Amino acid sequence: MKPSQNDIDRLIRAALEEDAPWGDITSQTLLPADATLTAQLVARESGVLCGSDLFRAAFTLTDPKVTTHFHVADAETFAANTILATVSGAARSILQAERVALNLVQRLSGIATLTAQYVAAVTGTNARITDTRKTTPTLRIFERYAVRCGGGHNHRFSLSDAVMVKDNHIAALGNTDITAALRRLRSELPHTTHIEVEIDRLDQLDAVLAAGPDTVLLDNFTLADLRTAVAKIAGKALVEASGGVSLATVAAIAATGVDLISVGALTHSVSALDLGLDIHADRNIA
Amino acid sequence: MKPSQNDIDRLIRAALEEDAPWGDITSQTLLPADATLTAQLVARESGVLCGSDLFRAAFTLTDPKVTTHFHVADAETFAANTILATVSGAARSILQAERVALNLVQRLSGIATLTAQYVAAVTGTNARITDTRKTTPTLRIFERYAVRCGGGHNHRFSLSDAVMVKDNHIAALGNTDITAALRRLRSELPHTTHIEVEIDRLDQLDAVLAAGPDTVLLDNFTLADLRTAVAKIAGKALVEASGGVSLATVAAIAATGVDLISVGALTHSVSALDLGLDIHADRNIA
Amino acid sequence: MKPSQNDIDRLIRAALEEDAPWGDITSQTLLPADATLTAQLVARESGVLCGSDLFRAAFTLTDPKVTTHFHVADAETFAANTILATVSGAARSILQAERVALNLVQRLSGIATLTAQYVAAVTGTNARITDTRKTTPTLRIFERYAVRCGGGHNHRFSLSDAVMVKDNHIAALGNTDITAALRRLRSELPHTTHIEVEIDRLDQLDAVLAAGPDTVLLDNFTLADLRTAVAKIAGKALVEASGGVSLATVAAIAATGVDLISVGALTHSVSALDLGLDIHADRNIA
Amino acid sequence: MKPSQNDIDRLIRAALEEDAPWGDITSQTLLPADATLTAQLVARESGVLCGSDLFRAAFTLTDPKVTTHFHVADAETFAANTILATVSGAARSILQAERVALNLVQRLSGIATLTAQYVAAVTGTNARITDTRKTTPTLRIFERYAVRCGGGHNHRFSLSDAVMVKDNHIAALGNTDITAALRRLRSELPHTTHIEVEIDRLDQLDAVLAAGPDTVLLDNFTLADLRTAVAKIAGKALVEASGGVSLATVAAIAATGVDLISVGALTHSVSALDLGLDIHADRNIA
Amino acid sequence: MKPSQNDIDRLIRAALEEDAPWGDITSQTLLPADATLTAQLVARESGVLCGSDLFRAAFTLTDPKVTTHFHVADAETFAANTILATVSGAARSILQAERVALNLVQRLSGIATLTAQYVAAVTGTNARITDTRKTTPTLRIFERYAVRCGGGHNHRFSLSDAVMVKDNHIAALGNTDITAALRRLRSELPHTTHIEVEIDRLDQLDAVLAAGPDTVLLDNFTLADLRTAVAKIAGKALVEASGGVSLATVAAIAATGVDLISVGALTHSVSALDLGLDIHADRNIA
Amino acid sequence: MKPSQNDIDRLIRAALEEDAPWGDITSQTLLPADATLTAQLVARESGVLCGSDLFRAAFTLTDPKVTTHFHVADAETFAANTILATVSGAARSILQAERVALNLVQRLSGIATLTAQYVAAVTGTNARITDTRKTTPTLRIFERYAVRCGGGHNHRFSLSDAVMVKDNHIAALGNTDITAALRRLRSELPHTTHIEVEIDRLDQLDAVLAAGPDTVLLDNFTLADLRTAVAKIAGKALVEASGGVSLATVAAIAATGVDLISVGALTHSVSALDLGLDIHADRNIA
Repeated sequence: MKPSQNDIDRLIRAALEEDAPWGDITSQTLLPADATLTAQLVARESGVLCGSDLFRAAFTLTDPKVTTHFHVADAETFAANTILATVSGAARSILQAERVALNLVQRLSGIATLTAQYVAAVTGTNARITDTRKTTPTLRIFERYAVRCGGGHNHRFSLSDAVMVKDNHIAALGNTDITAALRRLRSELPHTTHIEVEIDRLDQLDAVLAAGPDTVLLDNFTLADLRTAVAKIAGKALVEASGGVSLATVAAIAATGVDLISVGALTHSVSALDLGLDIHADRNIA
Repeated sequence: MKPSQNDIDRLIRAALEEDAPWGDITSQTLLPADATLTAQLVARESGVLCGSDLFRAAFTLTDPKVTTHFHVADAETFAANTILATVSGAARSILQAERVALNLVQRLSGIATLTAQYVAAVTGTNARITDTRKTTPTLRIFERYAVRCGGGHNHRFSLSDAVMVKDNHIAALGNTDITAALRRLRSELPHTTHIEVEIDRLDQLDAVLAAGPDTVLLDNFTLADLRTAVAKIAGKALVEASGGVSLATVAAIAATGVDLISVGALTHSVSALDLGLDIHADRNIA
Repeated sequence: MKPSQNDIDRLIRAALEEDAPWGDITSQTLLPADATLTAQLVARESGVLCGSDLFRAAFTLTDPKVTTHFHVADAETFAANTILATVSGAARSILQAERVALNLVQRLSGIATLTAQYVAAVTGTNARITDTRKTTPTLRIFERYAVRCGGGHNHRFSLSDAVMVKDNHIAALGNTDITAALRRLRSELPHTTHIEVEIDRLDQLDAVLAAGPDTVLLDNFTLADLRTAVAKIAGKALVEASGGVSLATVAAIAATGVDLISVGALTHSVSALDLGLDIHADRNIA
Repeated sequence: MKPSQNDIDRLIRAALEEDAPWGDITSQTLLPADATLTAQLVARESGVLCGSDLFRAAFTLTDPKVTTHFHVADAETFAANTILATVSGAARSILQAERVALNLVQRLSGIATLTAQYVAAVTGTNARITDTRKTTPTLRIFERYAVRCGGGHNHRFSLSDAVMVKDNHIAALGNTDITAALRRLRSELPHTTHIEVEIDRLDQLDAVLAAGPDTVLLDNFTLADLRTAVAKIAGKALVEASGGVSLATVAAIAATGVDLISVGALTHSVSALDLGLDIHADRNIA
Repeated sequence: MKPSQNDIDRLIRAALEEDAPWGDITSQTLLPADATLTAQLVARESGVLCGSDLFRAAFTLTDPKVTTHFHVADAETFAANTILATVSGAARSILQAERVALNLVQRLSGIATLTAQYVAAVTGTNARITDTRKTTPTLRIFERYAVRCGGGHNHRFSLSDAVMVKDNHIAALGNTDITAALRRLRSELPHTTHIEVEIDRLDQLDAVLAAGPDTVLLDNFTLADLRTAVAKIAGKALVEASGGVSLATVAAIAATGVDLISVGALTHSVSALDLGLDIHADRNIA
Repeated sequence: MKPSQNDIDRLIRAALEEDAPWGDITSQTLLPADATLTAQLVARESGVLCGSDLFRAAFTLTDPKVTTHFHVADAETFAANTILATVSGAARSILQAERVALNLVQRLSGIATLTAQYVAAVTGTNARITDTRKTTPTLRIFERYAVRCGGGHNHRFSLSDAVMVKDNHIAALGNTDITAALRRLRSELPHTTHIEVEIDRLDQLDAVLAAGPDTVLLDNFTLADLRTAVAKIAGKALVEASGGVSLATVAAIAATGVDLISVGALTHSVSALDLGLDIHADRNIA
């Protein structure tokens, strides 16, 4: 489930167009057409790689003759100073594509690296770390892939492929019978539809469980209330926790026995991983 | 120079399509078509607003009958707990558009807020805070606008509209006469083209100045070397500093007398500002 | 979950462009610009309506001033000779849009009407009639909506939103342990993913059930084998039947106790319902 | 005049995107990346082939390494159980593309096969079987090609490339002089424009013939009236018959001497031809 | 057959995007948001108007509140100094859209004006002036409309809607029987297809006429040969002349009795008509 | 800074689609699929070549097997009767693509040739010949490249990448202090923004110079006033002349000492250069 080549090409074409709508005037004017370079993608800090296909496509869609070889694969961990990839070809092309290539591989590796930290923090528990829909608009398919590269799991992709009944839906329903409302979802939607219901207080649990949801999301519960809810649900549904999740708190949340912990920060507040392109002019340009 | 309505509509349509490719199955099945809501965009922390037009468009392009009124304008500062906007209309539509609307306004307000911190840190100096090309691919026009909302300035938009000769270009040129190479840029490119040259050592300055650049970028210079370079350039070109810029260091860099300080972190490592949508069911749904 | 206005507009714009790439040369040359018409969409046979929004959009996107009023709503049943809708406006515009409008409403009403016949045939049983992925390429969102208008249910939308392990997958797996393979799906995919497994022989059932699927699809089973399988599954998973389903056989299949009967013919072999546009010139053209 | 590779690629890309917006989660999770398959497209009933290029493109655009060889060409007739094509390559890719490939080749072969039956029915007469504009919106170029594969002829492509004055136009003209109106078409439109006029009563023929149309369309005429009209037109224009055309009636209509018989059912009510993909795992996956 | 609003909007959006990819930095920075203007489109030379809808759309798609009123309609003749249109609204919007608006109305009015000169030159003869396929790529629909505004006629739109057998086709056919080849076109293509055949020597005429073409194109014939050919064809086909057509020669060519004279220069060598936008600041900006 | 392959492909695909929306019915019906041709692009008059990549792409995107070799490169001068390029491949493909290929190479070579005439006329002076924004909408990137091929320089690309304050802006500002207004541009816009100001009277010069513009544009100045202005500006800004520029006047304007002369006619009134495709049937078709 890597993003398809079509998805990759579409993003890269748009990014290249944005970054050079009428060409790279510096490289094309300054450098001879036949100057070539070898460049290395180097890790300036340790992390988990994600985005190699996008990185490669930035060069290939600028100039099909540029070659890119990765020495580390997506989802692999690397130390600082590791040479991640080698790029060779026309100097004009490599320098034109460099920023688009770096912007994407740094961002996605940042997500993968942060995810891996969360996953490591819950080692030994039953809990999955999952993403949310708090992704960069139009880049979701790539950011979800980065979460998987970091060892996390994906949540539903969109509003179309699974039900999530949230506090705002219940507010909008007013004093409707919530159990009946949830059952209607089951009867009208495709049998393949997973139904998850969010609650933010323990006293909401009984009415929700009565409707037979597939997953119950416990939002902003104390650790004590998480434990109580897990015990009460007792396998009748999956249990997801959200809210107040950080690297400092995630292990304790996982220890309550929840099945899933969703972490918005994996994608809504991304730090680009520090990766750089070190360039060596080939002999024939001297 | 706000992003145009066409730019806004194109992004929002793509984001809505991504987030609900075949509809919001929860809201459309669970909620009556005639249920209405009033929702408030509330600041859960202080900051600078950016993205009101995108926020509004997320609702309008989902349902033209939803109304959105902002009580704070883009580029304005707000305290925690401020009600930033009020949204009214069909419950189905508001809940379907909520996540796309929030994802964008939180991200752009995060950029504006961080920029404002950098700008405040250099108050009283001559230095402009500028962005870089380290933006989210395909969202540059919006992220640059967020930098302006935060009081920062924009750098060149792309590889097409200004020259930036970087260390990698000079490496690619080998032992070519750099002064002559830079003069060729001036003679071939449009007279409207600004020519900026990056150096990373003081001893490169003379050859560059001899070519009459419009701006000299001093990358990763010590404060002492920055001062030396500023004195040497002496108004013959604008002076930009980059590298090692943080909220802790920016004031000292500005104090060296540089004209511009470019900060990649403004856009490459964005923390979403904590804004939420509080929803109140209207009476007629009870 | 009606198709969104964006989906509708995109299809209609493409259809109008296909049908009149450089205008309707007959109407625009022959008819005066100010000639107006009133037209009625009339049922030449009984059926279930689907496609009113597309029908309306064909006229509106040709000419925003044309008005369309439906007297019967999508999903409603009508008798032969019923006037389904009235269209008024410029003669040139109505005659230009007529064929696109009819092509779509006839096709979708054909699907809805056939679906309703299958649904009626299983009345009194527990079985849902569902569609398949055998839809017209690029029109799936509309054809699935037509199935719902006819009282049927949708199956998964695509290869992305639910798992269906088919005979060809099992063939491709060779002599891998099928139970283990299925469990891997559960451990790797999002917790919201429904897992359905197809078998075509009773002796495959145990290995599949051992993996805990959400649904078992029994393909081309005899009625006797369907009954045996339903008894054996005994609520541990949903049961879907497919293969050899026709209006003649569906009731007997439903009577075996299966939960779902998927019918490819609902969308792969559509007969356009016979609907026509009867046109009356308005007085002012005489 | 086969659809161009651009037309084919555009349709297939859209269809693949629709059927797997974020990948084939079953095949990609279940099957090893290096598993390969050989599959055969087998006719489960006899017919006329159409759509081989689309079938191939579904695989190629999913994975350029999949190879597809057709043993029967478009427009050729085949018996039940014929192996029409062989597909080889990665199991994941073939299973992902299978449904899109089959949906199109089954639909187009259904059209070609039905067309061939109509063409056979009029063997020995002068009459051409032609399609109409009652095609699936956005797929016209492919469905018209299928009609040609079945031995039929195409009618005008769209409202832009030939004139067809229909009953509704004449109604919209009110009591205008029809002969004069038709002559205006000739004087204003390009000299390359074919002018066809529909009538539904014999008494309309004289006024139409007076204007010198290229073709007269006799809609819903009795056999006797067809014969009368053919005699009266006597070569001064081509004669087309439409309305009430079925496999049962078409031979008698052709025998009246008309030049053209247009059949909406060729494309508006398509039965997918029963073609299936039989899959054999290659040895290396066992 | 004016270009549709969809065609117009698509062109204008692309042109505006090209001319201001990230806004009009001059107007948006220099002028107050509430400054308004009234501008007049003034003819600096006489001519025939074409492009009013494109001119209006340039302003409207920049800013829906700008109003544009034309005092002269497309296809109307005007004298130098005529005020053709009045535009009112926000100064920023009008100045941003001005160049796109002018570029199109000047170009299309240039075509209409030149066409009108050719049409005037053949007054009193039977000959139509027609365009060719030598149009600006992607703007054909607009340039053909300009030819009609100038009183000319259109030729076939494209390679798809009529046959034109040119010298190069005949060369490519080698020593095939040309009459038979032409008859095959008639038997295979839709009955609505007009068949035109180009010859460049009188001695080719018999073989072509034997095939019954709809039009014969005489390319680069002398006036004497044109007369001979017209006499020989004698109404059995339409006669078109091309080659060596200028305002100096066209009357003599028309006098030979040909039905059509096609003029590539109408669109391949367009002089923009001199129209300008005179701007008056509204009082409220002083 | 040649247009990118993506830009080229996008234009050519649109042009081919426009010129053959459902195929080249003449070539595809008339010519055998295996007939091949060799064709030569021949100059019927002397000029400067531009558009070889577009010419090649027209054939390649119609049929990847067609080969195109240019014997003259873009920006090179050629005499009448020069063979510019040789094209070989399937006859159907070459004849289908011919018109699109010629339309573009003739138009762009027309621009390059005219530009070269202007450039030659100012030889020995300091003046650059530049283009303007009076380009064909949506083709600017290609027409600007043609100006460079002719030895001219480009002006700003669009409203986004440089400031040009024109008379209409100043009119819109009313009696605002122009010097202060211009300084605001400098303080708000990116430091890379070139600021050019148009004046049409000598008495406007002082206020403009006081604001420190990068370039002053003197519009419609007499030669005497040009000389006066050049003397007064004295190197404090670049000086551009516009208005009343023709091949007859340009040398005198250049002699006044201006740095730049912008010529709208380079692109707003293009005469296609007379280039033709001479076709030789290959032996194997005889």
